[in-house]
Amino acid sequence: MTGTPVDTLPPLDSGRMAIHTMTTRSLGLERCLEAYGKIGAGGISIWRQTIEPIGIRAAVQLVESSRMRVPALVRGGFFPAHNASDRDRAIQDTLASLDDAAALNAEMLVLVAGAVPGMPLTEGRQQVLRGMEAILPRAQELSIKLALEPLHPIYAADRSCVNTIAQARAILDDLDHPLTGVAVDVYHTWWDPELAPQIAALGREQRLFAFHVCDWKVERADDLNDRGLMGEGVIDIRGIRRMVEDAGFDGMIEVEVFNEDHWAGDQELYLEQIRDAWLEHV
Amino acid sequence: MTGTPVDTLPPLDSGRMAIHTMTTRSLGLERCLEAYGKIGAGGISIWRQTIEPIGIRAAVQLVESSRMRVPALVRGGFFPAHNASDRDRAIQDTLASLDDAAALNAEMLVLVAGAVPGMPLTEGRQQVLRGMEAILPRAQELSIKLALEPLHPIYAADRSCVNTIAQARAILDDLDHPLTGVAVDVYHTWWDPELAPQIAALGREQRLFAFHVCDWKVERADDLNDRGLMGEGVIDIRGIRRMVEDAGFDGMIEVEVFNEDHWAGDQELYLEQIRDAWLEHV
Repeated sequence: MTGTPVDTLPPLDSGRMAIHTMTTRSLGLERCLEAYGKIGAGGISIWRQTIEPIGIRAAVQLVESSRMRVPALVRGGFFPAHNASDRDRAIQDTLASLDDAAALNAEMLVLVAGAVPGMPLTEGRQQVLRGMEAILPRAQELSIKLALEPLHPIYAADRSCVNTIAQARAILDDLDHPLTGVAVDVYHTWWDPELAPQIAALGREQRLFAFHVCDWKVERADDLNDRGLMGEGVIDIRGIRRMVEDAGFDGMIEVEVFNEDHWAGDQELYLEQIRDAWLEHV
Repeated sequence: MTGTPVDTLPPLDSGRMAIHTMTTRSLGLERCLEAYGKIGAGGISIWRQTIEPIGIRAAVQLVESSRMRVPALVRGGFFPAHNASDRDRAIQDTLASLDDAAALNAEMLVLVAGAVPGMPLTEGRQQVLRGMEAILPRAQELSIKLALEPLHPIYAADRSCVNTIAQARAILDDLDHPLTGVAVDVYHTWWDPELAPQIAALGREQRLFAFHVCDWKVERADDLNDRGLMGEGVIDIRGIRRMVEDAGFDGMIEVEVFNEDHWAGDQELYLEQIRDAWLEHV
Protein backbone atom coordinates (compact mmCIF):
# COMPACT_ATOMS: atom_id res chain seq x y z
CA MET A 1 0.00 0.00 0.00
CA THR A 2 2.93 2.38 0.39
CA GLY A 3 4.84 4.06 -2.40
CA THR A 4 7.96 2.74 -4.03
CA PRO A 5 10.89 2.56 -1.59
CA VAL A 6 13.38 5.31 -2.19
CA ASP A 7 16.53 3.26 -2.34
CA THR A 8 18.89 6.18 -2.45
CA LEU A 9 18.01 7.22 1.08
CA PRO A 10 20.51 5.96 3.64
CA PRO A 11 19.10 3.49 6.17
CA LEU A 12 17.94 5.15 9.34
CA ASP A 13 19.64 4.39 12.59
CA SER A 14 17.05 3.66 15.24
CA GLY A 15 18.86 6.18 17.41
CA ARG A 16 17.12 8.84 15.35
CA MET A 17 13.76 7.42 16.34
CA ALA A 18 11.76 9.12 19.07
CA ILE A 19 8.46 7.69 20.23
CA HIS A 20 5.48 9.66 21.48
CA THR A 21 4.29 8.28 24.79
CA MET A 22 0.71 8.37 23.48
CA THR A 23 1.77 5.66 21.02
CA THR A 24 1.94 3.22 23.94
CA ARG A 25 -0.79 4.88 25.92
CA SER A 26 -1.10 2.28 28.67
CA LEU A 27 2.58 2.42 29.66
CA GLY A 28 3.73 4.75 32.42
CA LEU A 29 6.72 6.99 31.82
CA GLU A 30 9.21 4.67 33.51
CA ARG A 31 8.12 1.70 31.37
CA CYS A 32 8.17 3.89 28.24
CA LEU A 33 11.76 4.93 28.87
CA GLU A 34 12.89 1.34 29.39
CA ALA A 35 10.89 -0.18 26.56
CA TYR A 36 11.76 2.48 23.99
CA GLY A 37 15.44 2.11 24.89
CA LYS A 38 15.15 -1.64 24.44
CA ILE A 39 14.21 -1.30 20.77
CA GLY A 40 17.01 1.21 20.23
CA ALA A 41 15.03 4.44 20.18
CA GLY A 42 17.12 7.46 21.07
CA GLY A 43 14.28 9.76 22.01
CA ILE A 44 10.93 10.12 23.70
CA SER A 45 8.31 12.79 23.11
CA ILE A 46 6.31 13.11 26.25
CA TRP A 47 2.57 13.73 26.41
CA ARG A 48 1.29 15.64 29.39
CA GLN A 49 -1.09 12.78 30.11
CA THR A 50 1.96 10.61 30.80
CA ILE A 51 3.31 13.10 33.33
CA GLU A 52 0.03 13.62 35.17
CA PRO A 53 -0.05 10.40 37.27
CA ILE A 54 3.47 10.95 38.67
CA GLY A 55 3.97 14.71 38.58
CA ILE A 56 6.61 16.74 36.83
CA ARG A 57 9.34 16.27 39.47
CA ALA A 58 9.26 12.49 39.26
CA ALA A 59 9.05 12.72 35.48
CA VAL A 60 12.15 14.90 35.34
CA GLN A 61 14.09 12.46 37.54
CA LEU A 62 13.10 9.50 35.39
CA VAL A 63 14.06 11.26 32.18
CA GLU A 64 17.35 12.51 33.61
CA SER A 65 18.36 9.04 34.75
CA SER A 66 17.63 7.66 31.28
CA ARG A 67 19.76 8.56 28.31
CA MET A 68 16.80 9.59 26.21
CA ARG A 69 16.61 12.83 24.30
CA VAL A 70 13.28 14.62 24.57
CA PRO A 71 12.46 16.28 21.25
CA ALA A 72 9.06 17.46 22.40
CA LEU A 73 6.55 17.94 25.13
CA VAL A 74 3.08 17.38 23.70
CA ARG A 75 1.01 19.55 23.71
CA GLY A 76 -0.24 23.08 24.21
CA GLY A 77 -2.35 25.47 22.18
CA PHE A 78 -6.09 25.11 21.52
CA PHE A 79 -6.20 28.88 21.55
CA PRO A 80 -9.48 29.90 19.89
CA ALA A 81 -12.46 30.39 22.17
CA HIS A 82 -15.64 32.43 22.24
CA ASN A 83 -14.64 34.54 25.21
CA ALA A 84 -11.55 36.13 26.71
CA SER A 85 -11.50 34.04 29.87
CA ASP A 86 -11.46 30.78 27.91
CA ARG A 87 -8.74 32.15 25.68
CA ASP A 88 -6.75 33.15 28.74
CA ARG A 89 -7.19 29.68 30.24
CA ALA A 90 -5.65 28.14 27.11
CA ILE A 91 -2.73 30.56 27.32
CA GLN A 92 -2.14 29.85 31.04
CA ASP A 93 -2.30 26.13 30.35
CA THR A 94 0.21 26.44 27.53
CA LEU A 95 2.52 28.55 29.71
CA ALA A 96 2.46 25.76 32.30
CA SER A 97 3.38 23.30 29.54
CA LEU A 98 6.35 25.50 28.66
CA ASP A 99 7.60 25.23 32.24
CA ASP A 100 7.26 21.46 32.08
CA ALA A 101 9.04 21.38 28.73
CA ALA A 102 11.94 23.33 30.21
CA ALA A 103 12.11 21.09 33.29
CA LEU A 104 12.24 18.01 31.03
CA ASN A 105 14.89 19.61 28.85
CA ALA A 106 12.58 19.19 25.86
CA GLU A 107 13.61 20.95 22.69
CA MET A 108 10.14 22.11 21.74
CA LEU A 109 6.52 22.33 22.76
CA VAL A 110 4.08 21.04 20.15
CA LEU A 111 1.11 23.34 19.64
CA VAL A 112 -2.24 22.26 18.26
CA ALA A 113 -4.06 25.32 16.97
CA GLY A 114 -7.55 24.52 18.22
CA ALA A 115 -10.89 25.45 16.64
CA VAL A 116 -14.36 26.43 17.79
CA PRO A 117 -17.29 24.84 15.93
CA GLY A 118 -18.95 27.51 13.80
CA MET A 119 -16.22 30.13 14.25
CA PRO A 120 -14.85 31.27 10.88
CA LEU A 121 -11.51 29.56 10.31
CA THR A 122 -9.85 32.87 9.52
CA GLU A 123 -10.96 34.26 12.89
CA GLY A 124 -9.66 31.12 14.59
CA ARG A 125 -6.27 31.65 12.98
CA GLN A 126 -6.15 35.22 14.27
CA GLN A 127 -6.75 33.88 17.77
CA VAL A 128 -3.97 31.31 17.30
CA LEU A 129 -1.65 34.15 16.36
CA ARG A 130 -2.64 36.11 19.48
CA GLY A 131 -2.18 33.02 21.65
CA MET A 132 1.28 32.34 20.30
CA GLU A 133 2.22 36.00 20.77
CA ALA A 134 1.16 35.72 24.38
CA ILE A 135 3.38 32.72 25.14
CA LEU A 136 6.38 33.69 23.04
CA PRO A 137 8.16 35.79 25.73
CA ARG A 138 8.15 32.84 28.14
CA ALA A 139 9.28 30.46 25.39
CA GLN A 140 12.18 32.80 24.70
CA GLU A 141 13.06 33.06 28.39
CA LEU A 142 13.19 29.26 28.57
CA SER A 143 14.66 28.71 25.08
CA ILE A 144 11.89 26.31 24.15
CA LYS A 145 10.91 26.11 20.51
CA LEU A 146 7.23 26.32 19.58
CA ALA A 147 6.18 23.85 16.88
CA LEU A 148 2.77 24.58 15.41
CA GLU A 149 1.31 21.39 13.93
CA PRO A 150 -1.19 21.72 11.08
CA LEU A 151 -3.92 19.07 11.39
CA HIS A 152 -5.85 17.36 8.58
CA PRO A 153 -9.03 19.21 7.49
CA ILE A 154 -11.08 16.39 9.03
CA TYR A 155 -10.37 18.27 12.27
CA ALA A 156 -11.12 21.76 10.95
CA ALA A 157 -14.41 22.08 12.82
CA ASP A 158 -13.27 21.42 16.36
CA ARG A 159 -9.53 20.73 16.73
CA SER A 160 -7.51 22.85 14.36
CA CYS A 161 -8.25 25.84 12.18
CA VAL A 162 -4.73 25.41 10.77
CA ASN A 163 -4.96 22.67 8.15
CA THR A 164 -2.16 23.30 5.70
CA ILE A 165 1.53 24.01 6.10
CA ALA A 166 0.98 27.31 4.27
CA GLN A 167 -1.57 28.38 6.90
CA ALA A 168 0.92 27.59 9.67
CA ARG A 169 3.64 29.51 7.85
CA ALA A 170 1.37 32.53 7.48
CA ILE A 171 1.00 32.68 11.27
CA LEU A 172 4.76 32.29 11.72
CA ASP A 173 5.34 35.08 9.21
CA ASP A 174 3.36 37.37 11.47
CA LEU A 175 5.22 36.23 14.59
CA ASP A 176 8.59 36.50 12.85
CA HIS A 177 10.57 34.76 15.59
CA PRO A 178 13.28 32.07 15.28
CA LEU A 179 11.76 29.99 18.09
CA THR A 180 8.59 29.40 16.07
CA GLY A 181 8.32 26.63 13.50
CA VAL A 182 6.20 23.77 12.21
CA ALA A 183 5.76 20.12 13.11
CA VAL A 184 5.07 18.18 9.90
CA ASP A 185 3.07 15.01 10.58
CA VAL A 186 2.58 12.71 7.60
CA TYR A 187 -0.97 11.83 8.72
CA HIS A 188 -2.03 15.45 8.62
CA THR A 189 -0.10 16.66 5.60
CA TRP A 190 0.32 13.81 3.10
CA TRP A 191 -2.52 15.24 0.96
CA ASP A 192 -1.35 18.89 1.39
CA PRO A 193 -1.82 20.61 -2.00
CA GLU A 194 1.64 22.17 -1.70
CA LEU A 195 3.49 19.53 0.33
CA ALA A 196 6.86 19.57 -1.40
CA PRO A 197 7.25 23.35 -1.90
CA GLN A 198 5.99 24.14 1.60
CA ILE A 199 8.42 21.71 3.21
CA ALA A 200 11.20 23.23 1.12
CA ALA A 201 10.16 26.70 2.30
CA LEU A 202 10.21 25.56 5.93
CA GLY A 203 13.74 24.33 5.38
CA ARG A 204 14.93 27.60 3.87
CA GLU A 205 13.36 29.50 6.75
CA GLN A 206 14.83 27.23 9.45
CA ARG A 207 11.29 26.49 10.56
CA LEU A 208 11.08 22.73 10.06
CA PHE A 209 11.15 21.72 13.72
CA ALA A 210 9.68 18.22 13.73
CA PHE A 211 8.75 15.28 11.53
CA HIS A 212 6.11 12.87 12.82
CA VAL A 213 5.33 9.51 11.22
CA CYS A 214 2.44 7.04 11.27
CA ASP A 215 0.16 6.06 8.37
CA TRP A 216 -3.27 6.79 6.84
CA LYS A 217 -5.42 3.68 6.57
CA VAL A 218 -8.05 3.59 3.84
CA GLU A 219 -10.61 2.07 6.19
CA ARG A 220 -10.76 3.91 9.47
CA ALA A 221 -13.01 2.85 12.33
CA ASP A 222 -12.45 6.27 13.86
CA ASP A 223 -10.88 9.48 12.62
CA LEU A 224 -8.83 10.07 15.73
CA ASN A 225 -7.74 6.72 17.08
CA ASP A 226 -7.45 4.43 14.10
CA ARG A 227 -4.19 5.70 12.67
CA GLY A 228 -1.92 3.17 11.07
CA LEU A 229 1.53 2.03 12.01
CA MET A 230 3.95 2.92 9.22
CA GLY A 231 3.25 0.55 6.33
CA GLU A 232 -0.38 -0.07 7.27
CA GLY A 233 -1.67 2.72 5.05
CA VAL A 234 -1.22 4.68 1.85
CA ILE A 235 1.32 7.35 2.75
CA ASP A 236 4.64 7.44 0.89
CA ILE A 237 6.48 8.06 4.14
CA ARG A 238 9.89 7.57 2.61
CA GLY A 239 9.08 10.07 -0.12
CA ILE A 240 8.12 12.66 2.50
CA ARG A 241 11.22 11.82 4.53
CA ARG A 242 13.21 12.63 1.43
CA MET A 243 11.47 16.00 1.19
CA VAL A 244 12.24 16.90 4.80
CA GLU A 245 15.84 15.74 4.52
CA ASP A 246 16.27 17.66 1.27
CA ALA A 247 15.01 20.65 3.25
CA GLY A 248 17.87 20.14 5.71
CA PHE A 249 15.98 18.40 8.51
CA ASP A 250 18.31 16.22 10.58
CA GLY A 251 16.41 16.00 13.86
CA MET A 252 14.80 12.98 15.43
CA ILE A 253 11.93 11.38 13.57
CA GLU A 254 8.99 10.92 15.90
CA VAL A 255 6.67 7.92 15.84
CA GLU A 256 3.19 9.06 16.86
CA VAL A 257 0.39 6.54 16.40
CA PHE A 258 -3.07 6.64 18.00
CA ASN A 259 -4.66 3.25 17.54
CA GLU A 260 -7.14 1.48 19.80
CA ASP A 261 -6.23 -1.97 18.49
CA HIS A 262 -2.52 -1.49 19.04
CA TRP A 263 -3.21 0.06 22.46
CA ALA A 264 -5.18 -3.03 23.43
CA GLY A 265 -2.33 -5.44 22.62
CA ASP A 266 0.94 -6.33 24.36
CA GLN A 267 2.99 -3.13 24.26
CA GLU A 268 6.40 -4.87 24.22
CA LEU A 269 5.43 -6.83 21.12
CA TYR A 270 3.95 -3.70 19.62
CA LEU A 271 7.24 -1.86 20.11
CA GLU A 272 9.00 -4.61 18.18
CA GLN A 273 6.50 -4.05 15.36
CA ILE A 274 7.23 -0.34 15.57
CA ARG A 275 10.96 -0.98 15.22
CA ASP A 276 10.34 -3.26 12.21
CA ALA A 277 7.99 -0.74 10.62
CA TRP A 278 10.58 1.98 11.19
CA LEU A 279 13.27 -0.02 9.42
CA GLU A 280 11.03 -0.96 6.52
CA HIS A 281 8.94 2.14 5.89
CA VAL A 282 10.53 5.29 7.31
CA MET B 1 -23.86 26.04 15.27
CA THR B 2 -23.96 27.94 11.97
CA GLY B 3 -22.61 31.38 11.25
CA THR B 4 -24.50 34.61 11.46
CA PRO B 5 -27.38 34.78 8.97
CA VAL B 6 -26.60 37.12 6.11
CA ASP B 7 -29.72 39.22 6.15
CA THR B 8 -29.01 41.05 2.95
CA LEU B 9 -29.46 37.90 0.89
CA PRO B 10 -32.91 37.67 -0.67
CA PRO B 11 -35.04 34.76 0.57
CA LEU B 12 -34.76 31.73 -1.65
CA ASP B 13 -37.76 30.49 -3.49
CA SER B 14 -38.07 26.74 -3.03
CA GLY B 15 -38.41 26.54 -6.81
CA ARG B 16 -34.63 26.99 -6.91
CA MET B 17 -34.20 23.89 -4.77
CA ALA B 18 -33.22 20.62 -6.41
CA ILE B 19 -32.89 17.45 -4.39
CA HIS B 20 -30.49 14.61 -5.04
CA THR B 21 -32.34 11.31 -5.10
CA MET B 22 -29.65 9.83 -2.83
CA THR B 23 -30.93 12.21 -0.14
CA THR B 24 -34.08 10.07 0.13
CA ARG B 25 -32.37 6.82 -0.78
CA SER B 26 -35.27 4.49 -0.07
CA LEU B 27 -37.68 6.29 -2.41
CA GLY B 28 -38.05 5.18 -6.02
CA LEU B 29 -37.90 7.77 -8.78
CA GLU B 30 -41.68 8.12 -9.08
CA ARG B 31 -42.06 8.79 -5.36
CA CYS B 32 -39.13 11.22 -5.43
CA LEU B 33 -40.72 13.26 -8.21
CA GLU B 34 -44.03 13.46 -6.36
CA ALA B 35 -42.61 14.08 -2.93
CA TYR B 36 -40.07 16.68 -4.00
CA GLY B 37 -42.80 18.52 -5.92
CA LYS B 38 -45.00 18.46 -2.84
CA ILE B 39 -42.49 20.52 -0.82
CA GLY B 40 -42.09 22.95 -3.70
CA ALA B 41 -38.76 21.81 -5.10
CA GLY B 42 -38.27 22.75 -8.74
CA GLY B 43 -35.57 20.23 -9.54
CA ILE B 44 -34.25 16.73 -9.05
CA SER B 45 -30.70 15.50 -9.46
CA ILE B 46 -30.86 11.86 -10.30
CA TRP B 47 -28.44 9.23 -9.07
CA ARG B 48 -27.84 6.27 -11.32
CA GLN B 49 -28.80 3.98 -8.48
CA THR B 50 -32.31 5.44 -8.66
CA ILE B 51 -32.57 4.65 -12.37
CA GLU B 52 -31.28 1.10 -12.10
CA PRO B 53 -34.40 -0.64 -10.75
CA ILE B 54 -36.65 0.76 -13.50
CA GLY B 55 -34.32 1.36 -16.44
CA ILE B 56 -33.57 4.55 -18.30
CA ARG B 57 -36.67 4.48 -20.55
CA ALA B 58 -39.11 4.37 -17.67
CA ALA B 59 -37.03 7.00 -15.87
CA VAL B 60 -37.21 9.33 -18.85
CA GLN B 61 -40.98 8.93 -19.07
CA LEU B 62 -41.44 9.66 -15.38
CA VAL B 63 -39.25 12.74 -15.54
CA GLU B 64 -40.92 14.01 -18.70
CA SER B 65 -44.40 13.68 -17.23
CA SER B 66 -43.29 15.65 -14.16
CA ARG B 67 -42.44 19.31 -14.35
CA MET B 68 -39.10 18.87 -12.68
CA ARG B 69 -35.87 20.30 -14.01
CA VAL B 70 -32.91 17.93 -13.87
CA PRO B 71 -29.76 19.87 -13.06
CA ALA B 72 -27.60 16.78 -12.88
CA LEU B 73 -27.16 13.10 -13.38
CA VAL B 74 -24.94 11.74 -10.62
CA ARG B 75 -22.31 10.43 -11.24
CA GLY B 76 -19.44 9.38 -13.47
CA GLY B 77 -15.67 9.54 -13.21
CA PHE B 78 -13.52 7.45 -10.83
CA PHE B 79 -10.90 7.54 -13.57
CA PRO B 80 -7.58 6.57 -11.92
CA ALA B 81 -6.69 2.88 -11.99
CA HIS B 82 -3.55 0.77 -12.00
CA ASN B 83 -4.07 -0.63 -15.50
CA ALA B 84 -5.42 0.48 -18.84
CA SER B 85 -8.37 -1.90 -18.91
CA ASP B 86 -9.69 -0.60 -15.57
CA ARG B 87 -9.21 2.96 -16.78
CA ASP B 88 -11.10 2.14 -19.95
CA ARG B 89 -13.91 0.56 -17.95
CA ALA B 90 -14.34 3.83 -16.02
CA ILE B 91 -14.42 5.79 -19.28
CA GLN B 92 -17.01 3.45 -20.87
CA ASP B 93 -19.12 3.65 -17.75
CA THR B 94 -18.98 7.44 -17.77
CA LEU B 95 -19.86 7.54 -21.48
CA ALA B 96 -22.96 5.46 -20.70
CA SER B 97 -23.83 7.98 -17.98
CA LEU B 98 -23.58 10.76 -20.54
CA ASP B 99 -26.15 9.00 -22.71
CA ASP B 100 -28.46 8.68 -19.72
CA ALA B 101 -27.91 12.34 -18.85
CA ALA B 102 -28.90 13.35 -22.38
CA ALA B 103 -31.98 11.11 -22.33
CA LEU B 104 -33.08 12.67 -19.04
CA ASN B 105 -32.44 16.16 -20.37
CA ALA B 106 -30.02 16.73 -17.51
CA GLU B 107 -27.88 19.85 -17.70
CA MET B 108 -24.73 18.21 -16.45
CA LEU B 109 -23.04 15.03 -15.40
CA VAL B 110 -21.31 15.20 -12.02
CA LEU B 111 -17.85 13.65 -12.03
CA VAL B 112 -16.07 12.33 -8.98
CA ALA B 113 -12.35 12.16 -9.70
CA GLY B 114 -11.54 8.83 -8.09
CA ALA B 115 -8.29 7.75 -6.41
CA VAL B 116 -6.25 4.60 -6.04
CA PRO B 117 -4.80 3.87 -2.59
CA GLY B 118 -1.06 4.42 -2.70
CA MET B 119 -1.01 6.10 -6.12
CA PRO B 120 0.61 9.55 -5.92
CA LEU B 121 -2.15 12.15 -5.99
CA THR B 122 -0.44 14.02 -8.80
CA GLU B 123 -0.47 10.88 -10.95
CA GLY B 124 -4.15 10.37 -10.12
CA ARG B 125 -4.91 13.89 -11.31
CA GLN B 126 -3.14 13.21 -14.61
CA GLN B 127 -5.38 10.19 -15.08
CA VAL B 128 -8.47 12.28 -14.29
CA LEU B 129 -7.38 14.71 -16.99
CA ARG B 130 -6.97 11.84 -19.50
CA GLY B 131 -10.36 10.43 -18.54
CA MET B 132 -12.11 13.73 -19.01
CA GLU B 133 -10.37 14.23 -22.36
CA ALA B 134 -11.68 10.85 -23.44
CA ILE B 135 -15.32 11.66 -22.66
CA LEU B 136 -15.33 15.29 -23.77
CA PRO B 137 -16.17 14.65 -27.47
CA ARG B 138 -19.31 12.75 -26.49
CA ALA B 139 -20.26 15.39 -23.94
CA GLN B 140 -19.95 17.99 -26.68
CA GLU B 141 -22.02 15.92 -29.11
CA LEU B 142 -24.76 15.67 -26.48
CA SER B 143 -24.31 19.20 -25.07
CA ILE B 144 -23.97 17.87 -21.53
CA LYS B 145 -21.82 19.85 -19.11
CA LEU B 146 -19.19 18.03 -17.08
CA ALA B 147 -19.01 19.15 -13.44
CA LEU B 148 -15.92 17.94 -11.63
CA GLU B 149 -16.57 17.86 -7.88
CA PRO B 150 -13.60 18.24 -5.53
CA LEU B 151 -14.04 16.02 -2.47
CA HIS B 152 -12.81 16.67 1.09
CA PRO B 153 -9.26 15.39 1.78
CA ILE B 154 -10.76 12.73 4.04
CA TYR B 155 -11.41 10.94 0.73
CA ALA B 156 -8.00 11.56 -0.80
CA ALA B 157 -6.82 7.97 -0.40
CA ASP B 158 -9.59 6.14 -2.20
CA ARG B 159 -12.30 8.38 -3.65
CA SER B 160 -10.88 11.60 -4.98
CA CYS B 161 -7.38 12.83 -5.73
CA VAL B 162 -8.98 16.24 -6.40
CA ASN B 163 -9.48 17.86 -3.00
CA THR B 164 -9.44 21.59 -3.58
CA ILE B 165 -11.20 23.85 -6.04
CA ALA B 166 -7.78 24.97 -7.27
CA GLN B 167 -6.87 21.38 -8.15
CA ALA B 168 -10.10 20.99 -10.13
CA ARG B 169 -9.45 24.27 -11.92
CA ALA B 170 -5.94 23.15 -12.86
CA ILE B 171 -7.44 20.15 -14.66
CA LEU B 172 -10.01 22.36 -16.38
CA ASP B 173 -7.25 24.73 -17.46
CA ASP B 174 -5.64 21.84 -19.31
CA LEU B 175 -8.95 20.79 -20.89
CA ASP B 176 -9.81 24.36 -21.84
CA HIS B 177 -13.41 23.62 -22.86
CA PRO B 178 -16.59 25.58 -22.04
CA LEU B 179 -18.49 22.38 -21.17
CA THR B 180 -16.18 21.67 -18.23
CA GLY B 181 -16.71 23.22 -14.82
CA VAL B 182 -16.87 22.57 -11.09
CA ALA B 183 -19.54 21.43 -8.65
CA VAL B 184 -18.96 23.19 -5.33
CA ASP B 185 -20.32 21.17 -2.41
CA VAL B 186 -20.21 22.91 0.96
CA TYR B 187 -19.36 19.62 2.74
CA HIS B 188 -16.26 19.15 0.65
CA THR B 189 -15.07 22.73 0.33
CA TRP B 190 -16.06 24.70 3.45
CA TRP B 191 -12.49 24.40 4.81
CA ASP B 192 -10.85 25.06 1.38
CA PRO B 193 -7.82 27.29 2.03
CA GLU B 194 -8.83 29.52 -0.89
CA LEU B 195 -12.60 29.16 -0.85
CA ALA B 196 -13.64 32.74 -1.64
CA PRO B 197 -11.04 33.55 -4.33
CA GLN B 198 -11.46 30.18 -6.02
CA ILE B 199 -15.24 30.54 -6.20
CA ALA B 200 -14.76 34.04 -7.61
CA ALA B 201 -12.37 32.63 -10.21
CA LEU B 202 -14.90 29.96 -11.20
CA GLY B 203 -17.43 32.71 -11.71
CA ARG B 204 -15.16 34.79 -13.91
CA GLU B 205 -14.36 31.71 -15.97
CA GLN B 206 -18.01 30.63 -16.35
CA ARG B 207 -17.06 27.37 -14.66
CA LEU B 208 -19.28 27.40 -11.59
CA PHE B 209 -21.74 24.74 -12.69
CA ALA B 210 -23.32 23.55 -9.45
CA PHE B 211 -23.76 24.37 -5.78
CA HIS B 212 -24.54 21.50 -3.38
CA VAL B 213 -25.65 21.99 0.21
CA CYS B 214 -25.74 19.85 3.35
CA ASP B 215 -23.75 20.35 6.59
CA TRP B 216 -20.62 19.17 8.44
CA LYS B 217 -21.44 17.74 11.84
CA VAL B 218 -18.72 17.94 14.49
CA GLU B 219 -19.45 14.41 15.66
CA ARG B 220 -19.67 11.99 12.76
CA ALA B 221 -20.49 8.31 13.21
CA ASP B 222 -19.20 7.75 9.68
CA ASP B 223 -17.31 9.89 7.21
CA LEU B 224 -19.50 9.05 4.27
CA ASN B 225 -23.04 8.65 5.53
CA ASP B 226 -23.34 10.90 8.54
CA ARG B 227 -23.62 14.23 6.77
CA GLY B 228 -25.85 16.81 8.34
CA LEU B 229 -28.99 18.42 7.08
CA MET B 230 -28.42 22.15 6.65
CA GLY B 231 -28.28 23.66 10.16
CA GLU B 232 -27.11 20.47 11.84
CA GLY B 233 -23.44 21.35 11.51
CA VAL B 234 -20.85 24.09 11.45
CA ILE B 235 -20.87 25.31 7.87
CA ASP B 236 -21.77 28.93 7.14
CA ILE B 237 -23.92 27.84 4.21
CA ARG B 238 -25.43 31.27 3.72
CA GLY B 239 -21.98 32.84 3.62
CA ILE B 240 -20.90 30.41 0.90
CA ARG B 241 -24.17 30.99 -0.95
CA ARG B 242 -23.27 34.65 -0.97
CA MET B 243 -19.87 33.81 -2.48
CA VAL B 244 -21.40 31.74 -5.29
CA GLU B 245 -24.06 34.35 -6.01
CA ASP B 246 -21.45 37.12 -6.01
CA ALA B 247 -19.65 34.96 -8.58
CA GLY B 248 -22.76 35.08 -10.76
CA PHE B 249 -24.23 31.67 -9.99
CA ASP B 250 -27.99 31.65 -10.51
CA GLY B 251 -28.64 27.95 -11.07
CA MET B 252 -30.55 25.55 -8.88
CA ILE B 253 -29.16 24.86 -5.43
CA GLU B 254 -28.95 21.13 -4.85
CA VAL B 255 -29.66 19.44 -1.53
CA GLU B 256 -27.43 16.37 -1.23
CA VAL B 257 -27.37 14.68 2.16
CA PHE B 258 -26.14 11.17 2.94
CA ASN B 259 -27.36 10.24 6.39
CA GLU B 260 -28.24 6.80 7.73
CA ASP B 261 -30.49 8.20 10.46
CA HIS B 262 -32.49 10.36 8.09
CA TRP B 263 -32.67 7.49 5.59
CA ALA B 264 -34.13 5.27 8.31
CA GLY B 265 -36.97 7.67 9.11
CA ASP B 266 -40.22 8.60 7.37
CA GLN B 267 -39.14 10.23 4.12
CA GLU B 268 -42.20 12.50 3.81
CA LEU B 269 -41.53 13.99 7.23
CA TYR B 270 -37.86 14.24 6.36
CA LEU B 271 -38.68 16.21 3.22
CA GLU B 272 -40.62 18.68 5.34
CA GLN B 273 -37.50 19.05 7.50
CA ILE B 274 -35.49 19.59 4.35
CA ARG B 275 -37.84 22.35 3.23
CA ASP B 276 -37.62 24.01 6.66
CA ALA B 277 -33.82 23.69 6.73
CA TRP B 278 -33.71 25.19 3.23
CA LEU B 279 -35.73 28.21 4.30
CA GLU B 280 -33.75 28.75 7.48
CA HIS B 281 -30.17 27.94 6.51
CA VAL B 282 -29.59 28.17 2.74
